[in-house]
Amino acid sequence: MGTSETVEVTGHLMDSGILSRILDDIRDYGGDYVIDHFDVGHEADDPSRARITVQAEDDSSLQRLLMRLQTRGVNPLAPGEAATAPVERDGVLPEGFYSTTNLDTRVRLDGAWHTVENPEMDCGLAVLEAPDGTRRVRTVPMADVRTGMQVVVGASGIRVVTPEPGHEPAGGADDDGATDKPQAVLVRQVADGMRRTRADGKRLLWVAGPGVVHTGAVPALVALIGAGFVDTLFAGNALATHDIESAIYGTSLGVGLTMSQGIEHGHEHHVRALNTVRRAGSIAAAVADGTVTSGIMHALVVHGKDFVLVGSVRDDGPLPDVHTDVLEGQRAMRAHIQDVGLCLMMATQLHSVATGNILPASVPLVCVDINPATVTKLTDRGASHGRGIVTDVGLFLEQLALELVPDYRRA
Amino acid sequence: MGTSETVEVTGHLMDSGILSRILDDIRDYGGDYVIDHFDVGHEADDPSRARITVQAEDDSSLQRLLMRLQTRGVNPLAPGEAATAPVERDGVLPEGFYSTTNLDTRVRLDGAWHTVENPEMDCGLAVLEAPDGTRRVRTVPMADVRTGMQVVVGASGIRVVTPEPGHEPAGGADDDGATDKPQAVLVRQVADGMRRTRADGKRLLWVAGPGVVHTGAVPALVALIGAGFVDTLFAGNALATHDIESAIYGTSLGVGLTMSQGIEHGHEHHVRALNTVRRAGSIAAAVADGTVTSGIMHALVVHGKDFVLVGSVRDDGPLPDVHTDVLEGQRAMRAHIQDVGLCLMMATQLHSVATGNILPASVPLVCVDINPATVTKLTDRGASHGRGIVTDVGLFLEQLALELVPDYRRA
Amino acid sequence: MGTSETVEVTGHLMDSGILSRILDDIRDYGGDYVIDHFDVGHEADDPSRARITVQAEDDSSLQRLLMRLQTRGVNPLAPGEAATAPVERDGVLPEGFYSTTNLDTRVRLDGAWHTVENPEMDCGLAVLEAPDGTRRVRTVPMADVRTGMQVVVGASGIRVVTPEPGHEPAGGADDDGATDKPQAVLVRQVADGMRRTRADGKRLLWVAGPGVVHTGAVPALVALIGAGFVDTLFAGNALATHDIESAIYGTSLGVGLTMSQGIEHGHEHHVRALNTVRRAGSIAAAVADGTVTSGIMHALVVHGKDFVLVGSVRDDGPLPDVHTDVLEGQRAMRAHIQDVGLCLMMATQLHSVATGNILPASVPLVCVDINPATVTKLTDRGASHGRGIVTDVGLFLEQLALELVPDYRRA
Amino acid sequence: MGTSETVEVTGHLMDSGILSRILDDIRDYGGDYVIDHFDVGHEADDPSRARITVQAEDDSSLQRLLMRLQTRGVNPLAPGEAATAPVERDGVLPEGFYSTTNLDTRVRLDGAWHTVENPEMDCGLAVLEAPDGTRRVRTVPMADVRTGMQVVVGASGIRVVTPEPGHEPAGGADDDGATDKPQAVLVRQVADGMRRTRADGKRLLWVAGPGVVHTGAVPALVALIGAGFVDTLFAGNALATHDIESAIYGTSLGVGLTMSQGIEHGHEHHVRALNTVRRAGSIAAAVADGTVTSGIMHALVVHGKDFVLVGSVRDDGPLPDVHTDVLEGQRAMRAHIQDVGLCLMMATQLHSVATGNILPASVPLVCVDINPATVTKLTDRGASHGRGIVTDVGLFLEQLALELVPDYRRA
Repeated sequence: MGTSETVEVTGHLMDSGILSRILDDIRDYGGDYVIDHFDVGHEADDPSRARITVQAEDDSSLQRLLMRLQTRGVNPLAPGEAATAPVERDGVLPEGFYSTTNLDTRVRLDGAWHTVENPEMDCGLAVLEAPDGTRRVRTVPMADVRTGMQVVVGASGIRVVTPEPGHEPAGGADDDGATDKPQAVLVRQVADGMRRTRADGKRLLWVAGPGVVHTGAVPALVALIGAGFVDTLFAGNALATHDIESAIYGTSLGVGLTMSQGIEHGHEHHVRALNTVRRAGSIAAAVADGTVTSGIMHALVVHGKDFVLVGSVRDDGPLPDVHTDVLEGQRAMRAHIQDVGLCLMMATQLHSVATGNILPASVPLVCVDINPATVTKLTDRGASHGRGIVTDVGLFLEQLALELVPDYRRA
Repeated sequence: MGTSETVEVTGHLMDSGILSRILDDIRDYGGDYVIDHFDVGHEADDPSRARITVQAEDDSSLQRLLMRLQTRGVNPLAPGEAATAPVERDGVLPEGFYSTTNLDTRVRLDGAWHTVENPEMDCGLAVLEAPDGTRRVRTVPMADVRTGMQVVVGASGIRVVTPEPGHEPAGGADDDGATDKPQAVLVRQVADGMRRTRADGKRLLWVAGPGVVHTGAVPALVALIGAGFVDTLFAGNALATHDIESAIYGTSLGVGLTMSQGIEHGHEHHVRALNTVRRAGSIAAAVADGTVTSGIMHALVVHGKDFVLVGSVRDDGPLPDVHTDVLEGQRAMRAHIQDVGLCLMMATQLHSVATGNILPASVPLVCVDINPATVTKLTDRGASHGRGIVTDVGLFLEQLALELVPDYRRA
Repeated sequence: MGTSETVEVTGHLMDSGILSRILDDIRDYGGDYVIDHFDVGHEADDPSRARITVQAEDDSSLQRLLMRLQTRGVNPLAPGEAATAPVERDGVLPEGFYSTTNLDTRVRLDGAWHTVENPEMDCGLAVLEAPDGTRRVRTVPMADVRTGMQVVVGASGIRVVTPEPGHEPAGGADDDGATDKPQAVLVRQVADGMRRTRADGKRLLWVAGPGVVHTGAVPALVALIGAGFVDTLFAGNALATHDIESAIYGTSLGVGLTMSQGIEHGHEHHVRALNTVRRAGSIAAAVADGTVTSGIMHALVVHGKDFVLVGSVRDDGPLPDVHTDVLEGQRAMRAHIQDVGLCLMMATQLHSVATGNILPASVPLVCVDINPATVTKLTDRGASHGRGIVTDVGLFLEQLALELVPDYRRA
Repeated sequence: MGTSETVEVTGHLMDSGILSRILDDIRDYGGDYVIDHFDVGHEADDPSRARITVQAEDDSSLQRLLMRLQTRGVNPLAPGEAATAPVERDGVLPEGFYSTTNLDTRVRLDGAWHTVENPEMDCGLAVLEAPDGTRRVRTVPMADVRTGMQVVVGASGIRVVTPEPGHEPAGGADDDGATDKPQAVLVRQVADGMRRTRADGKRLLWVAGPGVVHTGAVPALVALIGAGFVDTLFAGNALATHDIESAIYGTSLGVGLTMSQGIEHGHEHHVRALNTVRRAGSIAAAVADGTVTSGIMHALVVHGKDFVLVGSVRDDGPLPDVHTDVLEGQRAMRAHIQDVGLCLMMATQLHSVATGNILPASVPLVCVDINPATVTKLTDRGASHGRGIVTDVGLFLEQLALELVPDYRRA
């Protein structure tokens, strides 16, 4: 084969199956390899280290393969220097752009290593130069690149670092989302992870779907908000609308109605609730004027917590707080992920995937869903620490509130 | 109870369980009822007819209950006259607005009945007056009402008509999405419905998710497009991106790669495909300049078929053709539903629900998904004729192409 | 059509959709009908009553259709007399035998009505004559009929009665197993139903699969056994083996092992546990000799509760208490269903269906499973009162123990 | 730690994740390890080889850990001699018995290696001595050991060999049951595997559940039987009963009835079908006397193919051919697995697990089910070559018949 590069990777390569994925990648990209050296460690806890010479037909193929391998934490042995090319058109990256991972990433420019700000998957790397000549490197989503920006091309001069194991929520091994687990133990482990995150001064980010309302978990989540275990909520129009609909109409009309299947459509309550909040002008205004007096959104407003609602094509209304432009919504979400120490994803695939896309790999995730396929999809993404729990979100949050909020249901 | 109204409903009330749902609604809304008359018919095919006096505490509750009952095809015996109120603020409907169903609807104004244009669920009814004094009534989504519009309030003066049975795709009874059905028979029935739709001069609307690409159904769908069985496609960024990614990179890299789980994220092929089309400026331009030479999107462009792509918060890129504002996306979809005679929903819940929201109840639906919950959700929506098929979309489309395209896989 | 019979049915025919199913049955069997009279009641709670003339081609078809309709609670207006025929061969019912429902059933012999002992689905009805000439009628499974028994043939002379609504566990409407329910409310309703059953002097029958062990619900179920909320347990070899395996090896080896996926096979712990109990001779002996000191089976033995374990083709071992002959197992189960007032089915389709087959329709069921298809299958069976709850059995039992056992997890 | 043993393992350790599982096992059993040597190979296709010193607290723990590791294909470096102990009680293995894997296994007795006949999981190893002193070693299920048999104890003197990759049905990498695969390609790969198996003179074993009947796949399976692609069928009472019910009543009553959900219970057709075959005495007799003239069971009888039906606790009837004792059923199945070259498992978890339990690891499996959890459970079992396909069994068999039977649906 025409061209080759020697790469290395360190870590618990076999425990995590990562080496096998690396070799698969090389084959998938039509490349070949020789394992030059493999040191498995001797003791049970030693990391292993592999040095592999990767071959490809031409340099362009090799560069793409090397970028691919970086998603696994594989770095070239000889780092080289990063090359850049200018953006020639708004929203279009230059040919051969480096496609980012969400791992901690450093870029070498003129011999100096720069740490990438806000690592995020599938972006470009923009090199920004301040008037004083200092340079910063940060990820820029494709839609946000602007003509003239300098963007990294090729895989040269880039190093990634996979997160250390042991940072994941439960202090144990990552979970594959199997349904057969002692659920009460898992709840306690998640509670511990939340307490630890807060003790570390980090923020707790929640992502939630309307199933949280339908399974009756509103009181539990409200209690968790009140006790300071929710810093930010990412959701869609549906969660907020069903929560507010339930707050406005729920008591008088009873469980039977508010929980019925037809809740999303063909049901005038939710459009009326939407219209009411639109008249108020915002959720906060509807709380302020006494229209909304309970529920999740009310609790977030009252306790001064952040939320970002992003719309989807199936929305009615939507609520005035909803970002109807999805790119604007993504930007709003990005503005709220600093210092997140743990992300809890509850019963939504759409918003959880969107959140996973923009979070660094170093932020551990807990994904709870009754659908095993959703849990697998969310936790089996590259090098992130994801803990999947296949269970009912209603009972899960009930138990979590019992663990974390001393007087929950005991008043 | 304070106030009451006598309503009537006609149809196959017991076969469809509709009467039981009507009585549930009345109880859910805190109302009460007396069945004044019930004529079940004598022969097996006779429709039944019920006249019910519905009671509620006050007029406002009664009006809302009557609106609710109209979603079941229940009309007041004495129609009365429709009342209207002006919109006082852009995007906010007046208090007590009539919340629409997607049934054929007529509105009585000054003694004359007006048929509602484009019936759609959960909208307001705007009364528009031409300079010559003629009036039209059409549905307007909440976000699109403008100050000064006259909008119907209350349930008075409105009649709805449920679709006749027998219009559904397979000429038989509606299906509840059970998994245990002779699947080959179902494929043939859907094929018959498609031929009939085309013979009637109606259009075939498809809604498809990325599973169509992942299950290998691209050749089958391309064949169906070529044979004239796809008039319009509604989809998201993912379907189009994966299709184009597969068209650009698929052949050289093989099935193993293009079909892998990790396709959506952490995989530089799809971001590179996105960037390539963004550089071209549009999918059509990428087809024209030879960048995209095969696949679903290519076939739509080449055969001059319509497509509407609407974005979601999880999108990368997106493709330049994608509506990133979901309200704009909904408007684009609404512009393409005239004369649709059959809607085929393939392996996407998000876009199928969005489509179901804007289609009249008279358009029969076929929903194919491997997840029974998705199929149930899509077909169990009010009075629409939905046929749910729990099966693999890859094999389903393969069989459908074998049924409908004479030379498919025989060349 | 050649022959006809007039039938009647009473009850909440529309609420339950039962009338629509009756008409479907008639069509499915190739019959026809005229509705002679239909009285829907006037007030919301009035039962309806229908009189229908059913037609079929010949008497044999008519008899089979009438038997079919009896599974819906439909009786001939003119009851007639029951006819019998002798069994001519062990294990084979006579031609035209009456196939039973699990409804309360009476049989008219020589003008006198006899109540059928132990109603059960899909059996024959044996007429037994005591030496003093008194006659009893009881269900006999096909495999258990013996030559010379007199068995009812045709549908004449038989009346069935559907259970009164309001006996179901939660005192409300039956549930269709939808996943979107407030789960904590459901747990409390089930707890109330259990307390009520016990207060009524009826017995609580549990059916459980190995998921109860895998989801960590052993402590909760042990607490419920200790508090007297389990009278009988039906299960298979797997539940008992995994419970005992966990009791013997669980503590020393930790959660990671005992809960792993591979637990059922390829894992020497469970075969060793099986062998150990086989050596002891029975589960009770293994408890008595100190081999098994904790867990579900231990609690049942110590508290003197009944259990019936029935084998399946996938069993290892099995435990000495397991009925390896499934017909023997069914007989053992039948011997334990007297006075059951509530049946709780936890995370097993096989044993739950088997139990549902032999329980009278008057016994309400609660089915908990994370798989919606299992819940639907178990609760959508004829006229039985089934409440389906799609949730995680581990968290469900945890919450149930918190509701019912005062000092659970507070010691 | 007190005691240790050096073991080795060879193969594609990293591709398959096997090494990571080995290390997990050691930790789970409370042991420790040092990796003495690890040779990863240099080229892409080289096997790797590891030598590991395993430590445990005492010899008993060590022996159990070594047995556990043998399920992964790990052998002691110094094989030693096998020890045996006599069975002291029917159906009970001696303390410390060697618990088998389903890998090719050899046992060393007095310096000579004996190949184990019929490798099967979770059995004992009986050493049988012929009158002439020659010794054979074969697996004996726990229930079948008899007093006085000599059975291997401990892990000494035993070597296992994992199957070579490349024997799996599709000639490619094992599949993890992901739903997103090009389904038409998978069908063709399975067809190729079947042709190859037949060309090799091996037998095709099918395991099928009633879903095969409900999804309309009877004609396809009948065509495959006729074309010689089914040598043996393992199933339960349900498949055979529904097939025969459909053969007897299906034509006259139409699809609507025979395919309805309620088919299993509360439906007199199937009990009547059962009774009819019981009267005939056997399925073959019912075919011979003209009672059963079509369907799967008819085709098996007519073409002289084997079938083994084993009962379960939920059975009605059952058919006279059904083994009601599950241990007898297992024995009957064991008698039919010689020379099986490929096993196809269709839409049944119970019988597929039972079959997987008794098949050697060297027999490749193809598992088709619409439920991803079932597919994962069946294919993720130790070292077997399992290919899982999450799809609809009805359409799958339709496509398979189109691939394999030249005139299928073209007559």
